[in-house]
Amino acid sequence: MSPTLRVGVVGVGLMGADHAHRLAARIAGASLAAVADPDVERAADLAEELGGVTVHADPLDLVAADDVDAVLLASPGAVHEEQLLACIGRGLPVLCEKPLTMDSASSLRVIEAERAGGRPLVQVGFMRRFDPEYAHLKAVLDSGRMGRTLLLHQTHRNLSVPNPAFRSEMIVRDSLVHEVDCARWLLGEEIVSIQVLGPRPTRHALAGVLDPQVAIFQMASGAVVTNEVFVNSRTGYEVRVEAVGEDGSAVIGRPSSGVYTTSSDPDGGAGAWGGPIDPDYRVRFERAYDLEVQAWVDACRRGERVGPTSWDGYASTVVCTAGMESLTSGRAVDVDLVAG
Amino acid sequence: MSPTLRVGVVGVGLMGADHAHRLAARIAGASLAAVADPDVERAADLAEELGGVTVHADPLDLVAADDVDAVLLASPGAVHEEQLLACIGRGLPVLCEKPLTMDSASSLRVIEAERAGGRPLVQVGFMRRFDPEYAHLKAVLDSGRMGRTLLLHQTHRNLSVPNPAFRSEMIVRDSLVHEVDCARWLLGEEIVSIQVLGPRPTRHALAGVLDPQVAIFQMASGAVVTNEVFVNSRTGYEVRVEAVGEDGSAVIGRPSSGVYTTSSDPDGGAGAWGGPIDPDYRVRFERAYDLEVQAWVDACRRGERVGPTSWDGYASTVVCTAGMESLTSGRAVDVDLVAG
Amino acid sequence: MSPTLRVGVVGVGLMGADHAHRLAARIAGASLAAVADPDVERAADLAEELGGVTVHADPLDLVAADDVDAVLLASPGAVHEEQLLACIGRGLPVLCEKPLTMDSASSLRVIEAERAGGRPLVQVGFMRRFDPEYAHLKAVLDSGRMGRTLLLHQTHRNLSVPNPAFRSEMIVRDSLVHEVDCARWLLGEEIVSIQVLGPRPTRHALAGVLDPQVAIFQMASGAVVTNEVFVNSRTGYEVRVEAVGEDGSAVIGRPSSGVYTTSSDPDGGAGAWGGPIDPDYRVRFERAYDLEVQAWVDACRRGERVGPTSWDGYASTVVCTAGMESLTSGRAVDVDLVAG
Amino acid sequence: MSPTLRVGVVGVGLMGADHAHRLAARIAGASLAAVADPDVERAADLAEELGGVTVHADPLDLVAADDVDAVLLASPGAVHEEQLLACIGRGLPVLCEKPLTMDSASSLRVIEAERAGGRPLVQVGFMRRFDPEYAHLKAVLDSGRMGRTLLLHQTHRNLSVPNPAFRSEMIVRDSLVHEVDCARWLLGEEIVSIQVLGPRPTRHALAGVLDPQVAIFQMASGAVVTNEVFVNSRTGYEVRVEAVGEDGSAVIGRPSSGVYTTSSDPDGGAGAWGGPIDPDYRVRFERAYDLEVQAWVDACRRGERVGPTSWDGYASTVVCTAGMESLTSGRAVDVDLVAG
Repeated sequence: MSPTLRVGVVGVGLMGADHAHRLAARIAGASLAAVADPDVERAADLAEELGGVTVHADPLDLVAADDVDAVLLASPGAVHEEQLLACIGRGLPVLCEKPLTMDSASSLRVIEAERAGGRPLVQVGFMRRFDPEYAHLKAVLDSGRMGRTLLLHQTHRNLSVPNPAFRSEMIVRDSLVHEVDCARWLLGEEIVSIQVLGPRPTRHALAGVLDPQVAIFQMASGAVVTNEVFVNSRTGYEVRVEAVGEDGSAVIGRPSSGVYTTSSDPDGGAGAWGGPIDPDYRVRFERAYDLEVQAWVDACRRGERVGPTSWDGYASTVVCTAGMESLTSGRAVDVDLVAG
Repeated sequence: MSPTLRVGVVGVGLMGADHAHRLAARIAGASLAAVADPDVERAADLAEELGGVTVHADPLDLVAADDVDAVLLASPGAVHEEQLLACIGRGLPVLCEKPLTMDSASSLRVIEAERAGGRPLVQVGFMRRFDPEYAHLKAVLDSGRMGRTLLLHQTHRNLSVPNPAFRSEMIVRDSLVHEVDCARWLLGEEIVSIQVLGPRPTRHALAGVLDPQVAIFQMASGAVVTNEVFVNSRTGYEVRVEAVGEDGSAVIGRPSSGVYTTSSDPDGGAGAWGGPIDPDYRVRFERAYDLEVQAWVDACRRGERVGPTSWDGYASTVVCTAGMESLTSGRAVDVDLVAG
Repeated sequence: MSPTLRVGVVGVGLMGADHAHRLAARIAGASLAAVADPDVERAADLAEELGGVTVHADPLDLVAADDVDAVLLASPGAVHEEQLLACIGRGLPVLCEKPLTMDSASSLRVIEAERAGGRPLVQVGFMRRFDPEYAHLKAVLDSGRMGRTLLLHQTHRNLSVPNPAFRSEMIVRDSLVHEVDCARWLLGEEIVSIQVLGPRPTRHALAGVLDPQVAIFQMASGAVVTNEVFVNSRTGYEVRVEAVGEDGSAVIGRPSSGVYTTSSDPDGGAGAWGGPIDPDYRVRFERAYDLEVQAWVDACRRGERVGPTSWDGYASTVVCTAGMESLTSGRAVDVDLVAG
Repeated sequence: MSPTLRVGVVGVGLMGADHAHRLAARIAGASLAAVADPDVERAADLAEELGGVTVHADPLDLVAADDVDAVLLASPGAVHEEQLLACIGRGLPVLCEKPLTMDSASSLRVIEAERAGGRPLVQVGFMRRFDPEYAHLKAVLDSGRMGRTLLLHQTHRNLSVPNPAFRSEMIVRDSLVHEVDCARWLLGEEIVSIQVLGPRPTRHALAGVLDPQVAIFQMASGAVVTNEVFVNSRTGYEVRVEAVGEDGSAVIGRPSSGVYTTSSDPDGGAGAWGGPIDPDYRVRFERAYDLEVQAWVDACRRGERVGPTSWDGYASTVVCTAGMESLTSGRAVDVDLVAG
């Protein structure tokens, strides 16, 4: 195992700042060496809070710095291609928050550069693969005790989306993309067609935005995946999967875990049993993020690579692009991947 | 309230015999007056077991008998039309097991005869509407506390189908039909299109039979209903619904109800927690059948009618006919109901 | 099977009126023939509502009436002895709400009269034995698959007790008595000592009333039963049991059964999952009461007897008397039953 | 924050080796500097596996070493006093696995030495306080939304105890001790008396060993705590708590968390729903141990102290000593703590 891995974090918005704190306080074998953000003041404030961290205004300067062994990209997707190519050019391992890039052509360019370099360097931030419940489900499916998996039913709800610029396509690209990756990973096969339906929207959706959405994936084996994505559910962050096999089924993400309470009714009537729903993905997947980053650091120190690859990033982008096309017609759209 | 209702049961196969026992032992205000079945021996055995029951070989004789106030039809669907018309002709209330009839034209003839008679007489045996959990869910939806209902996710699994004559269409006609009725009833609106997908089948299915199936209903309001029907699930009888509204969701049918146990591992390792799954619909819906028949008897004695109507029987037949058509193409098929 | 059983109900308070409605509308093979209550107006109103029911001011007149085949006693415990002896004297089967009588001496006199009459006539109204969950638990324990039962943990909570005359002893006599019967029935053995502890009371208890209480039963075999009884829990009616055996455990009464919902937070934060708690025993045990009375009617018509006996009524009275004694000292008190 | 904390681990049996791996691979800000164990070969093997770790045969040499900033004691309880006094003498922070020491007199000597040194140095390894579910429960109780806590019901089951030298007292000293600490911590007050009952033992217990046991704690405020401890439950590792307050209750540790499956019956009947039970404390509390050690390392680097103190270690020893006395009589024994 190599010495402490010196990590540079690019982009210190909500997600990047989270990762910076994580690297500084909860990850073994790593140190936070540098942060970069066009908003230099924000980067400098974070560096001062955490101590002993170099600040760069230009992400490419961070990538070029001598004291950075690996890069965590939490910048906007639109600038990922340039930053990924720089990391690959320097031979630096990189953990890239999704999306890999914004379209399939640019994702293929990243894959090509990585191949040309002769060794895999990119891990895409589909953190669910590191969540203990997802990992447990994957182990159950791979054990074969449920026979072949025939169906997945995936549910993905967010509390609300206050962003006035929100559009229907963003549900596919930013939320459904996680279901795309999970379906491919859990079933170990590609999606061959996608159909996205927009039911009558909730009154909490912005005008013109289709929310919730129902998506159907056809997998290469013939397995079918149903998905509900609902970003103004008003209930909280709920992520569930049911896998149905030939000899049984398995469910994760039921909100019944954790503390369970009974409570009294303020009006003196009978009370209720139950518990709270997680407010957002950072609470629900906090442990998954910790495990993801620890696994990335451990792999970097061993000179290895783990987790979702640049191909996984590319494939999810292609599926979501087809999904956005289906959203307008409601009909199934074929997914065309280049030969892998 | 009129005196004890004298009921005749037509058809004493599994379901009819169950109803005969129910009327004889568990229903207030009714007596089992007569049974009819072309298999006279079977009918006679049952009559002898229960005592004081007249036996008819010809169901139409039972319908014409003086000592029968109301008829429960548990005969095969193919003979329902004739028997229903006979009951309506005599002005007898009738509880008819599903399907009302085998096609939409015959169902419309029943509706027409009932209308011509001037008063509603037919209750169709969609017993789930009387199940306490379904009734509770319906009350939650109708209360408005979840806002409008936007989505239903329905699951319907049977343990196994040993019948060698079983065909894919029978999943739609005999199993999915319950989901059709529940969707219409829970949402209070008609289905406007249905799409049925056949994923790669379980190895437990007969050759050529598509099992499981996934069906999508589009409702008149724009609500969407996803359905899984799986008749060789090998796990048991599982019927669940999740309703998703603008301000919350509601689930019934989770198998976690009832006795919950921990058990030891015969091999000395750690054990498991959990409980049994119901083997079949007669166990799961025993109470629903009791409540359905009691409600029917009570309504008959008051000269009233409750529960699913002949229109509900007709509509479910039309939807399932469209579903069987969709099963071959995988594409959505519009549902055309005559003006109600 | 004899013809319809004509039942007289003695006492038409909350419980008696419930039973009268049950006999009139939900029980097969029985009719409500007569009601008796010192409050004649209340009895007459009920008789008029239900129709065709004779009214008696004096319960002993009802017991003596020609048109009564069996008696359901829902009068106060203090008058049970006289009424039970009258029923036994006439050879009438009787379903007697608990307590059998108010003390052990009078209970023994009832047992003695019943024995002198040569056939068992009394069923005591411990309705939980007919609850499907309790019956299922009993079947699991009796199956032997959990080995010997070593421990029971029983929980019994009521929403609130508004009665200003309420005293600590009433928790033992009226609430804990159900746990006494369940422990004896589930384990199939007698209680040999009882210890009742009064923790610091809830602020919702009346001054001087010990609520909640914790009771420990030692069974003849050495099994131990812990009990929580809490009559001002403010959460609703919660009745649970966990049985712990040598090879597993079993739990009933978890409030997680039935409809399960997620709901939004009125303040816009993350919501909650859960469901309602039953308000009172009439809701929780409605089905148990139906099944209890149906089983009683069926047994009467067959000339048989089922369910808890007068001995069970006597034994529970003796245990609760010892429990009330323990309540003042906190020490274990031996239970002395006469030879059975 | 100081630089990386160099930790020495004393005792490399099951628990110590776990901690050594944890410090080497999962804890930020710490390094494993040294291990000590009288079984030098075992210590040397572990050091070689982890790399860069000094080996000491004598734990006191490790405590005296220049390159050790803090000590984690996972040695047998009988040698804790000497090792703790050595750490305190050198001013080293120490995380001491329970028990603090074997009796109250030696625990008081440790407390005295720590006080004489002028700053707190000892954290006792009651890891449950760091478990997310326990921490959540503690937060609910401290929030006051359930009013005062009146009762705790604690359950603690182990799969089996194969040790032929096992005796009844060890259930109190090694298992119940966790319930003692949790009751004191959750309720924020001392235990004033303890009563331990030994029901008829499971047939899986060694001859003469009382298993399961039921213990009752009376708290200073009058709150009551019931405990089941069962070390040959055959079901697995089950740790649950229910807290009952004036306005609600809260439960943690229900085995229903995590993946939930349905499975088929090998004999072709209906299957079951449920999930696995954890095999042992290392699985159930793995995350608690990680969080405990991370919190200890963080506190050491800040020059602070967190978690259970030497007083908590002393108090739990005194309560368990009283509990072992009660085990022989079944009567309540008062707990006498010196003035704190």
